[in-house]
Amino acid sequence: MWGDWCDWGWTMRKATLGLLLLLACAATCDQSGQNQDGDQKGPLRRGHVSVVVVGSTGDLAKKYLWQGFFNLYASQVGKGYSFSFYGGGLSPDSRGTPLLFEILKSQDCPVDVSDERCALVREQFLRLAQYRQLKTEEDYQALGEHIETQLKQEGIVEAGRLFYLSVPAFAYADIAQRVNRSCRPPGTAWLRVVVEKPFGHDSNSAQELATQLASSLKEDEMFRIDHYLGKQVVSQILPFRKGNRKLLKSIWNKHHIDRMEIVLKETLDAKGRISFYDQYGVIRDVIQNHLTEVMTLLTMSVPKNLTDCKEINRNKLKVFNALHQLDMPSAVIGQYQTYNSEVQHELNKTKDHFSLSPTYAGIAVHTSMPQYDGVPIFLVSGKLLDERVGYARIIFKNNVFCVQDPTSITCKPKQIVFYIGHGQLQYPAILVSKNLFKPALVNNGWKEVTENDDTLLFGIPMSDYYIQTPVVQQEAYTELISQVFRGRRDHFVSAESLLASWKFWTPLLNSLKHTFPRPYPGGAANANLLDFQLQGREVRFCSEALVNMIPQEQTESFQVMQGKYRSADMVSAWSKELVERLAHDLQEAAEEAVQEGTPFHLALSGGSSPLALFKQLSQHHYAFPWWNTHVWMADERCVPPNEAESNFRTIHDHLLQHVRLPYFNIHPMPVQLNQRLCVEEDGGALVYERDIARLINASSFSYVLLGVGFDGHTASLFPGNRLDTSGERLVALTESPLKPHQRMSLTFGAINRARRVSVLIMGKGKHELVTQLSRIKDTPDRWPITKIQPGNGKLVWYIDYDALLGQ
Amino acid sequence: MWGDWCDWGWTMRKATLGLLLLLACAATCDQSGQNQDGDQKGPLRRGHVSVVVVGSTGDLAKKYLWQGFFNLYASQVGKGYSFSFYGGGLSPDSRGTPLLFEILKSQDCPVDVSDERCALVREQFLRLAQYRQLKTEEDYQALGEHIETQLKQEGIVEAGRLFYLSVPAFAYADIAQRVNRSCRPPGTAWLRVVVEKPFGHDSNSAQELATQLASSLKEDEMFRIDHYLGKQVVSQILPFRKGNRKLLKSIWNKHHIDRMEIVLKETLDAKGRISFYDQYGVIRDVIQNHLTEVMTLLTMSVPKNLTDCKEINRNKLKVFNALHQLDMPSAVIGQYQTYNSEVQHELNKTKDHFSLSPTYAGIAVHTSMPQYDGVPIFLVSGKLLDERVGYARIIFKNNVFCVQDPTSITCKPKQIVFYIGHGQLQYPAILVSKNLFKPALVNNGWKEVTENDDTLLFGIPMSDYYIQTPVVQQEAYTELISQVFRGRRDHFVSAESLLASWKFWTPLLNSLKHTFPRPYPGGAANANLLDFQLQGREVRFCSEALVNMIPQEQTESFQVMQGKYRSADMVSAWSKELVERLAHDLQEAAEEAVQEGTPFHLALSGGSSPLALFKQLSQHHYAFPWWNTHVWMADERCVPPNEAESNFRTIHDHLLQHVRLPYFNIHPMPVQLNQRLCVEEDGGALVYERDIARLINASSFSYVLLGVGFDGHTASLFPGNRLDTSGERLVALTESPLKPHQRMSLTFGAINRARRVSVLIMGKGKHELVTQLSRIKDTPDRWPITKIQPGNGKLVWYIDYDALLGQ
Repeated sequence: MWGDWCDWGWTMRKATLGLLLLLACAATCDQSGQNQDGDQKGPLRRGHVSVVVVGSTGDLAKKYLWQGFFNLYASQVGKGYSFSFYGGGLSPDSRGTPLLFEILKSQDCPVDVSDERCALVREQFLRLAQYRQLKTEEDYQALGEHIETQLKQEGIVEAGRLFYLSVPAFAYADIAQRVNRSCRPPGTAWLRVVVEKPFGHDSNSAQELATQLASSLKEDEMFRIDHYLGKQVVSQILPFRKGNRKLLKSIWNKHHIDRMEIVLKETLDAKGRISFYDQYGVIRDVIQNHLTEVMTLLTMSVPKNLTDCKEINRNKLKVFNALHQLDMPSAVIGQYQTYNSEVQHELNKTKDHFSLSPTYAGIAVHTSMPQYDGVPIFLVSGKLLDERVGYARIIFKNNVFCVQDPTSITCKPKQIVFYIGHGQLQYPAILVSKNLFKPALVNNGWKEVTENDDTLLFGIPMSDYYIQTPVVQQEAYTELISQVFRGRRDHFVSAESLLASWKFWTPLLNSLKHTFPRPYPGGAANANLLDFQLQGREVRFCSEALVNMIPQEQTESFQVMQGKYRSADMVSAWSKELVERLAHDLQEAAEEAVQEGTPFHLALSGGSSPLALFKQLSQHHYAFPWWNTHVWMADERCVPPNEAESNFRTIHDHLLQHVRLPYFNIHPMPVQLNQRLCVEEDGGALVYERDIARLINASSFSYVLLGVGFDGHTASLFPGNRLDTSGERLVALTESPLKPHQRMSLTFGAINRARRVSVLIMGKGKHELVTQLSRIKDTPDRWPITKIQPGNGKLVWYIDYDALLGQ
Repeated sequence: MWGDWCDWGWTMRKATLGLLLLLACAATCDQSGQNQDGDQKGPLRRGHVSVVVVGSTGDLAKKYLWQGFFNLYASQVGKGYSFSFYGGGLSPDSRGTPLLFEILKSQDCPVDVSDERCALVREQFLRLAQYRQLKTEEDYQALGEHIETQLKQEGIVEAGRLFYLSVPAFAYADIAQRVNRSCRPPGTAWLRVVVEKPFGHDSNSAQELATQLASSLKEDEMFRIDHYLGKQVVSQILPFRKGNRKLLKSIWNKHHIDRMEIVLKETLDAKGRISFYDQYGVIRDVIQNHLTEVMTLLTMSVPKNLTDCKEINRNKLKVFNALHQLDMPSAVIGQYQTYNSEVQHELNKTKDHFSLSPTYAGIAVHTSMPQYDGVPIFLVSGKLLDERVGYARIIFKNNVFCVQDPTSITCKPKQIVFYIGHGQLQYPAILVSKNLFKPALVNNGWKEVTENDDTLLFGIPMSDYYIQTPVVQQEAYTELISQVFRGRRDHFVSAESLLASWKFWTPLLNSLKHTFPRPYPGGAANANLLDFQLQGREVRFCSEALVNMIPQEQTESFQVMQGKYRSADMVSAWSKELVERLAHDLQEAAEEAVQEGTPFHLALSGGSSPLALFKQLSQHHYAFPWWNTHVWMADERCVPPNEAESNFRTIHDHLLQHVRLPYFNIHPMPVQLNQRLCVEEDGGALVYERDIARLINASSFSYVLLGVGFDGHTASLFPGNRLDTSGERLVALTESPLKPHQRMSLTFGAINRARRVSVLIMGKGKHELVTQLSRIKDTPDRWPITKIQPGNGKLVWYIDYDALLGQ
């Protein structure tokens, strides 16, 4: 069979060393060294390429992969490479061979190839192909030996070997190992192994798979396909942003972008794929990968060099680093109503089995990248919806005031749409509202659409858009197979960005594990059932929310218990309501200070309990009078103030960075003076004490927020510390039994002068402590918290039900 | 004539002391002590009220005022007061009397009074009225004596005297003086004097008028009318906000409000009023007063007590205090095309006279009140537009994602409209989108509109709004005259808020003094000519901007000259472009640091030149990598860092407060240590030096921005200072010839180590200095700036054309 290779298939038997060196330069993004226009027509000596499709008769291969390789072959004929194609599979040759050739014969001709030429190319392609059983270690050894032998026999230099693993992910590691052991080309020829999702189902499994694969293959030998990156429109997002950067510069930011939407709607259900789908659900299936890739392309810094995969990778990682962590309220999920019976049927489950896998999800993502700060990015996908469509849409704020004629083009909404495919338009396109700007043509494979009508697309008549579309529509796999061949790693997912993506999605997936998805009937009948709305950074379904979209007056709706605890007032509720109440009470106190015309002096503690309070304050208390508030520290660890262990650092990152507090109103404890930490002689405690005395009337804080440790300590006042009981000192250096031992703390004297002191205790772990504290007498040496007794102020305990009731 | 007063007019001749005391309690907002429902039907003894309309036969009186007093009289008949009405004017009685009675006879009957009863009431009203010439001091004396005499003759107790000055504003002071001298009631009866805009034409003139009036009248005797406050919808803004506070609480803030629009469109021109109008223009005519009042009602904190005029006043002043100052780019202005010929005609001007008074203005206002931070408030008004309409509109952000059916009610825009009148609706109304909430009825004088159709109102079908309208439509003057009578000062403009408003508007008015308004044809022909758009906090007309809405790449479009100055690079341009270029260069340098993975250490100077740069950076450089930037000081005055004189305070207020810089990246100079300023032994300079050495690689700043003083000083390095030339010290205490003398400054050594140093010089005043500097040699003792010569870095001079060319 090899002897039959004609000039098309294998144009030359000897290759020059120089060319091979070029081809072997595997570490760059564009590894092929080819002229991208492919206009080198002469019979150059570029060597032989062996293509091995493992899982060659499966669905994906049948539908897309062989077509991609046939197109590749057709485009490469006469350009200097010779090829051989191996279809691998578990079946013996006798069964596999006819199956494979059945598939190969039915591949369509590429659009730019005449029928006559196509017939010739196809005949050749079939001659270059063979089926091989690839089941055991020995099968791979045999394949490797076969390739070597043939190369030697023919005296041909090798360019590289391309393995496409179209098999379930659990088989990747084994196959990679076998390829590494038995099929790795010698010398400078390249090895490229293509794999496709799922790359794990969470952070850990993805890491595990990555480690396994890395033991057999180098990172630059692995081509992780996300076929969305092969979609013509998706692959043009960065070129579009770069080509129009001058026009986009001033509007591609939070001041102009209202929101981004990245949407993949499907009309199909999951029938027939349940055994796969039910383990994954919609977030793992398309959001963690496809939609997330699109999101990074939209929000990343545009690389200076669009083919520099290192720069691309670096910029993508920055996107992931800046994303706000998701948790349960970041998403709404749904499941189409017949899904569960499909699960019962396909997985042989009983009637009481209930799957919680979502088939629909709507998610709001936020980033702290300064230019997108506050811009919501909606990621939405679902099965059995009304329409099949994929798009990413950047909607700009309406910055125009129309005095007379709101129907004029200037007054219409402004948006840029990356229309990935299907839907109303039925072709991939990039649309730019005419009242934004006229975009440059992304490349000469694209054309402007001039015939259009008044069909509304996203609320705007088609004629109000500049529309570009590819001259020739190309399947994503054909595109990506060509990119693998060209060694263009920038079109593939790097290990780092894959892991970063899983790291981002895993906490949400975990938090949704036990959440019931909202059932939906499917198709048009869904109507508005799946619509959702943003509140702060959280989302909720609209149809529930229509009723309570505007929450009741918070103080009235709290399911809150009021009572007494250690002879003082106590507020108790489930943790969420408790934090809401505390935030509410704090704001009320701060507003009272404004009314009185005095500053609000707030002393905060470290620890993890206040984090929920900080989040509540910064995300929901928009009108908190921060401009009139001074933030002080109840205590501090003797570490540099910008280190992670510092209480101030915690308060800074979770509260101060998110609200607008004047610099002068921020008062970290001076634990670091003269380049050293908490040295008595440096007098840090005295410095703080003087600041307090200077700025706060009668050194009486408006509000002190405390916690309690398991050992009964509060602020950094620990059992057994020699505590000043005269109440004259306001700040002291203290010692903690836990590291870091050295602390600075407000004294009892300072705390007990405050107008209001709140002690926040949350979590089951504190139940025993709460019980114990309720019984004991004031014993400050053993239980420092019992000495908190404001002289003229008010003490209130905020204890959640978990801590109070232990349940 | 007085003897004819019947029971209706003067129900009783003697009043009890208690009632009078109540009536005299003039310091409260609701001074009448009346039951507001007016349901006290018995013949109570409330005393006599004398109403004096000065200018009683003028246009306003004819059209609105007498109708208001007639309505007042009709509503008060039989409720315990007796009345007399004096129409005053400059004409002698023989001419004035018939004119007045012509007017009085033609007043309409109030809608809630039967024709029969109305005829009786009118007859009575005519009997109680008389014309009086009020021209000289003696006329007022005579009036005062007349009232006293009659009261004595009839033995009636006096309730109060109401003067309505319907005369040009220049006459206010004189009349007020005469009223004070000759017509002030004795004892506990009240005096109320009503005046109406214009209350001056800028800050100074308003202050002057206020002072003049205050010498004759007490503040609580003055009722400054803004007739917009009498519009039924406007007067219900606060009650609406209060009545729906629970529902509004979570959405009435920057996170939900997209923008506010306050609009008063007129179809009329200014013909016939030019002599008044041309001195004022649209901003003084309706925006400084009417639209501003509406803006304060929309943005102020809702007072706990809606009739507490002190609380209302306090809250309004807070609104004014928080407004960002306006300047030229805050507004677009226009003038209808025939206006100028009207001016020439009515003011007898020649053909070359050109008036710059705007007849149209669109203004974007921003406030730093935390809950509205970043929300633009558009104030728009104009003459000769396409439609007569007044409204205030709160447009909420679209927080909903509609998965399938974007035509559903949940997916539609959300807004609250205070529809003041005219326009499509033709009646005053409050509209709330049904997808927001169902508002409570503001009061029982209002009703829900249930009949509606699919007319689009602000893009939404009427049927998608909850609509409320007053049961009976009432003229604003009738309403306000009734409020004057009731002593409800909360419906009037206080002196403080009037002056605050002028203080806010005057800088804009001054900056527009020499600006040519855009001409517009008037009516429908205006089309989109007057549409404008927001960019940052600035606005510009769209139709110019359609071309350059997206500015060209800044570096390319700068009209910038590059050259050499003192052997270093120089960039020169008009000040605006110069600042844009400097900001651009700064960001580029900051981004380079990000690329290199190093922090960007920026040292800034004090003074006024950098203010424009700070504004440019904070408003237009959204993507500036502040998170990677450290801000240091080039120099500091030895004053507490939060005082106005402090350089840090300037940088804080104009830059740091507006960008998101981590607390740890902010480095004020430690001029205050141990509660004292710049004492050598406290070692502040050393502390700063150590911080620099610790945080900055090789103590080499990334960028130092300097200015130059007239004496050649830069940073705080002054001529004749004993300057360290060894270059070892980085920070030093220095002395300035100007106060405050003590300074802290980076040394030449520190500055010359920087990677980049820019010197910014702007303004004509610096031209001589720039010329001189271009000629002299390096003479650091005399000209410290000449010693700025970065060793391994780059020096660039940024000099604007004013400073460079002296023009």
